Parts: sequence; C-alpha cells; structure tokens
Amino acid sequence: MHSSIFNIQAKHKRGDLVTVKGWVRTRRDSKSGVSFINLYDGSCFDSLQVVVPDNLENYQEEVLKLTTGCSLMVKGELVKSLGKQQSLELRAEEVLVVGWVDDPDSYPMSPKRHSLEYLREHAHLRPRTNVIGSVARIRNCISQAIHRYFNEQGFLWVASPIITASDCEGAGQMFRVSTLDFQDPARDEHGKVDFEKDFFGKETFLTVSGQLNAEAYACALSKVYTFGPTFRAENSNTSRHLAEFWMVEPEVAFSDLNESAELAETLLKAICRAVLAERADDLRFLSEYSGEDLFSRLDQLATMSFVHIDYTEAVAILEQAERDFEFPVFWGADLSSEHERYLTEQHFKAPVIVKNYPKDIKSFYMKLNDDGKTVAAMDVLAPGIGEIIGGSQREHRLDVLDARMDELGMNQEDYDWYRELRRYGTVPHAGFGLGLERMVAYVTGLGNVREAIPFPRTPRNASF
Amino acid sequence: MHSSIFNIQAKHKRGDLVTVKGWVRTRRDSKSGVSFINLYDGSCFDSLQVVVPDNLENYQEEVLKLTTGCSLMVKGELVKSLGKQQSLELRAEEVLVVGWVDDPDSYPMSPKRHSLEYLREHAHLRPRTNVIGSVARIRNCISQAIHRYFNEQGFLWVASPIITASDCEGAGQMFRVSTLDFQDPARDEHGKVDFEKDFFGKETFLTVSGQLNAEAYACALSKVYTFGPTFRAENSNTSRHLAEFWMVEPEVAFSDLNESAELAETLLKAICRAVLAERADDLRFLSEYSGEDLFSRLDQLATMSFVHIDYTEAVAILEQAERDFEFPVFWGADLSSEHERYLTEQHFKAPVIVKNYPKDIKSFYMKLNDDGKTVAAMDVLAPGIGEIIGGSQREHRLDVLDARMDELGMNQEDYDWYRELRRYGTVPHAGFGLGLERMVAYVTGLGNVREAIPFPRTPRNASF
Repeated sequence: MHSSIFNIQAKHKRGDLVTVKGWVRTRRDSKSGVSFINLYDGSCFDSLQVVVPDNLENYQEEVLKLTTGCSLMVKGELVKSLGKQQSLELRAEEVLVVGWVDDPDSYPMSPKRHSLEYLREHAHLRPRTNVIGSVARIRNCISQAIHRYFNEQGFLWVASPIITASDCEGAGQMFRVSTLDFQDPARDEHGKVDFEKDFFGKETFLTVSGQLNAEAYACALSKVYTFGPTFRAENSNTSRHLAEFWMVEPEVAFSDLNESAELAETLLKAICRAVLAERADDLRFLSEYSGEDLFSRLDQLATMSFVHIDYTEAVAILEQAERDFEFPVFWGADLSSEHERYLTEQHFKAPVIVKNYPKDIKSFYMKLNDDGKTVAAMDVLAPGIGEIIGGSQREHRLDVLDARMDELGMNQEDYDWYRELRRYGTVPHAGFGLGLERMVAYVTGLGNVREAIPFPRTPRNASF
Repeated sequence: MHSSIFNIQAKHKRGDLVTVKGWVRTRRDSKSGVSFINLYDGSCFDSLQVVVPDNLENYQEEVLKLTTGCSLMVKGELVKSLGKQQSLELRAEEVLVVGWVDDPDSYPMSPKRHSLEYLREHAHLRPRTNVIGSVARIRNCISQAIHRYFNEQGFLWVASPIITASDCEGAGQMFRVSTLDFQDPARDEHGKVDFEKDFFGKETFLTVSGQLNAEAYACALSKVYTFGPTFRAENSNTSRHLAEFWMVEPEVAFSDLNESAELAETLLKAICRAVLAERADDLRFLSEYSGEDLFSRLDQLATMSFVHIDYTEAVAILEQAERDFEFPVFWGADLSSEHERYLTEQHFKAPVIVKNYPKDIKSFYMKLNDDGKTVAAMDVLAPGIGEIIGGSQREHRLDVLDARMDELGMNQEDYDWYRELRRYGTVPHAGFGLGLERMVAYVTGLGNVREAIPFPRTPRNASF
C-alpha cells in the first residue's frame, strides 16, 4: 500500500519508510549530485519534496530525464525538511518511472502560468494544475458539506427527474430529449413530428429545476432536498451561465419564507465554515492567485448576520442611491446584478436577503401575499457576487394557485399532479435553489462558473 | 419550532410540551370519548399516536371528520404510551387542521394496501405510503453512506458531464439532446440536418457513463468518484432497467483490478452497515412487506468474505452444474443472470467477484491481460440479485489501446483527449460502476428499480 501525500504530512513521522505515487511537478538538480523532485498526487495542495541521490541505479538514465507530468512510484525514508512549507520530505531509495511524457516540449500543462481560457481548452488535463486542482478539492468540500448539513438536519436527498415532460419555470429555453430519427422523424397525418412514436411517447426535455418534484416529496416526508444537474438552453456567454449546472434545492413542509431564509443563511454559513476548516491550503493559494482575500470573504459570510429587507425597501434604497445605474430602478422592475451588488457591497456591506417581490416578475408557484401584489419570494445576495440563492414560499392554496395559472394562461391539466398536492392535505411549504457552480466560483475567487465544473457546457461547447 | 416525530422519540421525555406537524395516517374513535390519530411526518418509519380528548373545541366539527392524508398541527404533552411499539404518545391540547382531503372517498392513497403498479401511477403521492417512504429513507441512507465512505477515504466527488458528444461504451442507444426545431431543422446543402447550427455546434447526447471523464480526473488527482444520473435509450421493460438512473463510479490512479475488487467489497460492506445501523425501522417493515429477510441479506454482505474467481473458472463450474440453463455456457459467452445467480446463490452461497473476462465481450478501454485473450474486467455478484457492480482496470498503454480501437474500427480522433491521458504520465488505473437503483431495490427487497427512484423513466413513461 502506498500513502497519499496528505497522509504523509498528516499521519507519518520522521524515519517512516513509505511508498508514494504521483506526478512530477518540477525537477531541480543540485551541483552536489542530488535531484529535488516535487511530487503531486492531488490529495492536498502541497507537493512532496523528494530528494533523489545520484547513486540510484537509474539516476543518470531516468531521473535526470524526468519532466513535468511524468508519473512515478517512489520508495524511501521520511526525513525532516529544511524548507519551511512542509515538515517532511522523502529521501528516495527507489524511483520507478511509471509513465513518461511524450514530447515534453509540447506537453500542454508545462510548468508555467497558463490562462484560464487556455486551460478550458484542455479540460482533460487542467486538473493537473494548481488552480484547477484547488477548485476540484473545494468543490468536493462544498458538496460534502451540503450533504452533511442536510443529513444532520434530517433532510432526505431525493432524486428529481432529469428528463421531464413539464416545464417548471414555464419559460421555454429547454433542451429537447429524443430518440426519433432527426433526419426523417415519424410524422402524423398532418405532417407534424409524431412524438407519440418517441421513446417516452411524448415530447420530453431536460429539467430546468427539480422543485416541483421535490414539493411532492416534501408534502409527504417533510424535509427533502435535491442535488443534481439542471439545464438551460440559453444562448448566454457570461461568467455566470452554463447550459448544464448543478443545483441544490431544499424543500420543507410546514415552512414559510422566513424559515426558508433562515435555512439559506445557516446552509451558507455551514459551507463557509467547512471550507475554512478543511481547505485552508487551497484558499491560501487561490487568494494569491485571484487577488481576493478569500479567508475574509468566507469568514464574513460565516459570521455576519444577514440583513433582511423587503423588495419595496430595497427599491427605495436604490432610488435614493447617489449613483447612476445602467438599468432603471422602479417598483415593479426586477433587480439587476448592479442593483444587487450595490445593496450588498455598498449600502449594507453585508449579505442581504431581499423578500416579497412583485408577483409579475416571479413564477406562478410562489405564494401570493395578503397585499395581492407581491409574492413570498426571496433572493440572497452576497458581497462579491450578488445573487447566490433564490427561493420562495410556494402557493399551497389550490384556489389561489388556479387563479394565478389562469391569469398566466397556463393549462391546469398539465399540472394536475402538482395541483393534487394542494387537494390532499395541503401544507404551507417553502424552499430555494443554490447554484453549485456559482457558489464554487465565489468561494474560489475565480468568478467564472466555467472553472467551477470539470467539463463546462456552454453555447457551441460540449467537448470532452 | 416544532419537533419531528423522530426527535420526539429520540430526544424528548414524558411531560414535555411539544408541537408536531404531519399527516393523518388513521383515526380511530373510542366509545369513551377520545380519538386516536396516527400522525406521520416522514422523519422515521413510525407514526406518533396522538390522543385527542373530546373536550377540544373543534372535536365534533373537525377532529371527528379527519381522514387519511389530512395535514395537522398538534400541540400537547408527551405521555407514556400504553402500546408496545413506541414509548411516547401525544395528549393533544390543540389540533389545528392545516389541510383537508378533498373528497376522501376518492383519495388515491386511502389506507389500504395498494399494488406497487398502482402506486407508480401516482408517483407524486406514493411517498405518503409506508413502503415508498421506507424506500426514500433507505435510498437517502445509502447515498449518504456512499458520499461519507468516499470522503473518508480521500476521494473527490467530481461531476462528469451529462450532455456529451462522445459515447463511452461505443454502444449506441443514446438519447439525443438538441435545440433545433424538430419540425423543420436547419439542413446543409445535402439536405442533412445541420448540427453545426445546434446549440453545441455538433451532435450531442445524454451520457451513458461518466467513466472516461472520471479517468481524466483520476489521472490528475488520484482518487475520484462520480455520483450522478446516466441514461440508456434501451427499449427494455424489465425490473432491472431504467432509461434514467443514478450511477456511482469511483476511479483510482495507480490501482489495478484486484484493488478495485477490494474497493467494491469494502464499499458494499460500508453501505450495508450504514443501513443496518440507521434504518432498522424501515428494514423491519420492508422485510415483512417483501417476505425477504433483509437483515440477513445485509448482514451477509457486510460480513462474509467475497469469493474471487476467474471467468474461466466460473465457466468450468457452470459447465459442471447439474442444472439446465436457458442460455448455453461456454468459454467466450457472456454470463447471463441465471448463471450469475447460480454462482452466487447455489454454488458459493456468498458474494462472488468474477474477474478476467474474454476481451471480445467487453469494452475497448479495458486492460488487455498478458494472455492476449482476456481483459482485466470484473463483475460483483450478490445472492438475491446477481450483478450489482461492473468494473475494470483501464488500458493505460497507448499502443495497446490504439490497437484495440483499430480492431473495433473506432476513430482515434474522436478519443484524442482520452488518448492524451496515456501520452502524458500514464498510470495504471481502475474503477467500477454501481447502479444506485439496483442497490436500493436489493436492499429494500422490492426487486424492481421502478420503486427505487422517485419518478422512474421507462419506455413510454416520463410522467410527473
């Protein structure tokens, strides 16, 4: 058995004989006749320094030819390191080259700083870099923290369907899923494509949200969450949009908007605490890389009380702001990113939860407030990113829901099963959605969701 | 704040004043003038018995009209229960009806035993039943155990892409993903559909496996796993097939087939131990429901050593079996379910790992053994289900991989990025796939994957 580099530093001591396996980051040869190899295996940010004496059998023939990216197995004894960064280094007694790098001069991950755009074009190799390795560990840390948090709070993880015949947001922009022959699909007597002949016997799409399905489970088992991929066929080339992204959607029965806001706050705090506790190594590197003080950023989110304001109040603040916004502010308009960031970064200098938006800019399923013109919706805004969570209390009164669907010209029959949740033992319930990649982009300071997922899907890009 | 029924039994004591919220399972009225209501909230298998005295204000008007499925908030004092099943019951001081059941006679989840087929047709309401509630809790328990296990072992959860332009198994039967107008798609000058105009600028499909992408991450970060939905557009209407199912795929660098077999065994054992430790309540019910002794089943998997045999040996055993198989057995044939179950249930009476299959019945990426005719593949077979895990060591030698792809007439260019993993610091690596729904169907004794996922997708069915 070999040891991971994380375990070397965490569990081993001077004098231990160990075997490690990993990839060469750099090699440096001293004049005194030893080589220093930085060996990396992804188990933590740091590499292990391997000291290779020139009396090893394959020193001349192999060790001196090692380049970045070569894979090695090294056996040796742990000794105290003279460097500051780590306490132990490995004095090699055997170096086995497992895999060479074909034509080192053209190796795409050569040891220099590559642009993030360049790395995206080599998404299969970019996890070998410091920056994307750190992102992968932090994404994992965040994801595990989310599961742990919900599990400890008694939530059940439920799988909402990916392929769906319904459209949660009522908003188009979905990917079609089909097995019909695209060149020459079956057609009915009117010449229309005959989806009756398709795999599912009807038109199907990739889901934009698991919420409606999660509601069915919350209205039976009280506390559930989904954590899975969702899709938008939007032609958006921005740092905040992906065609395929992972979303976390808790849904709680017997719950209202204020409880949901509290859940959002405690979840975000739990995530930040986990990253601070577990990934200080990566945060140190990424702070330097991005120029953002990520420790402060996370500490702020983990410890500050979130400000709660109503949309109406937010609009008043924005109207009085001594600043020209690109988009006009008035009661009834949706807040844009510049407004959100003004509120959280300039005005309150704290995370902000904006609640009770005008019904006309929000989805059909949100609970109508007693004023008849706002719904119990919320957006959670954080300094440095803006909106990070969106949620609402759901309309649990069948008559009000039906009236709203009528108003919007929606077909009740399409939502019969959803309406039945309100016919049989309906309960107030609420939930929200947290986009995982936005959270990862925020925590890592990289700011672009294309770095936050291993193989990003965007308009005209589904490589790898 | 209200208490979950799980917390009532786990953390509260006699005399505590509590509020609980949930749904009526049953109501029984005694002649002495009290009603007994079983209240369920999904937090555990058991309901809470609520004793409602007839002196409550709304006793005549409301309590006596409560039916299965009505939602309630109940305040009261916890008292010692006279029944055996639970230690505490709730003496109601206030019963608030939150939601009535519209036309109780037609309520689809009436308190009688419904067939599983009937429940599937009401997938939005079926989590309200004992059986599907138990499945949901066990599925969650298994999923959490999987994440916990990998996290503790230093694996990183990576997201493999759902939308893909490549076909991992080289096996067709994929769902197409597109935003082109199906009625009248853009066509090129030859009249062919012009996928250059599609969202991603090329043909795209739903993934059948995240393995190839996971390999890229393992070849950088050593130990990773995927846990997400995968898809097969197979027209299979069996108890073992879904068009959309969740798969867990660990991938480990510097690892071989035997280490992967060991990982599979320890993972399965960790899952079984977690379910035994955390969900005895649901296992008790499901054992009775299914007629299977699920405790023994899990205990066996958790404690017995798995038998390791070669495919060649397995074929010899089957050839000598005093039994007529429907499908013939000979070296070179794939094992069918009856063969697998004979090995694990009749011959060894233990979990079995069959290794080193003929290369012609396995995928292109599996490592060719030195005999030149078998590959380092494995299937893990368990009594009562047959194959539960399939895996392999991957071919990490570029020349051997290329030769195999040539043999199969595959286009190397389509796999350039995958081949580059072998050009740059290649390492032996191995992994496997565990189908979550098969595991859930096995652990719950229900035997059909359609019960193991909330909203199953099968040929001609994408409802809800």
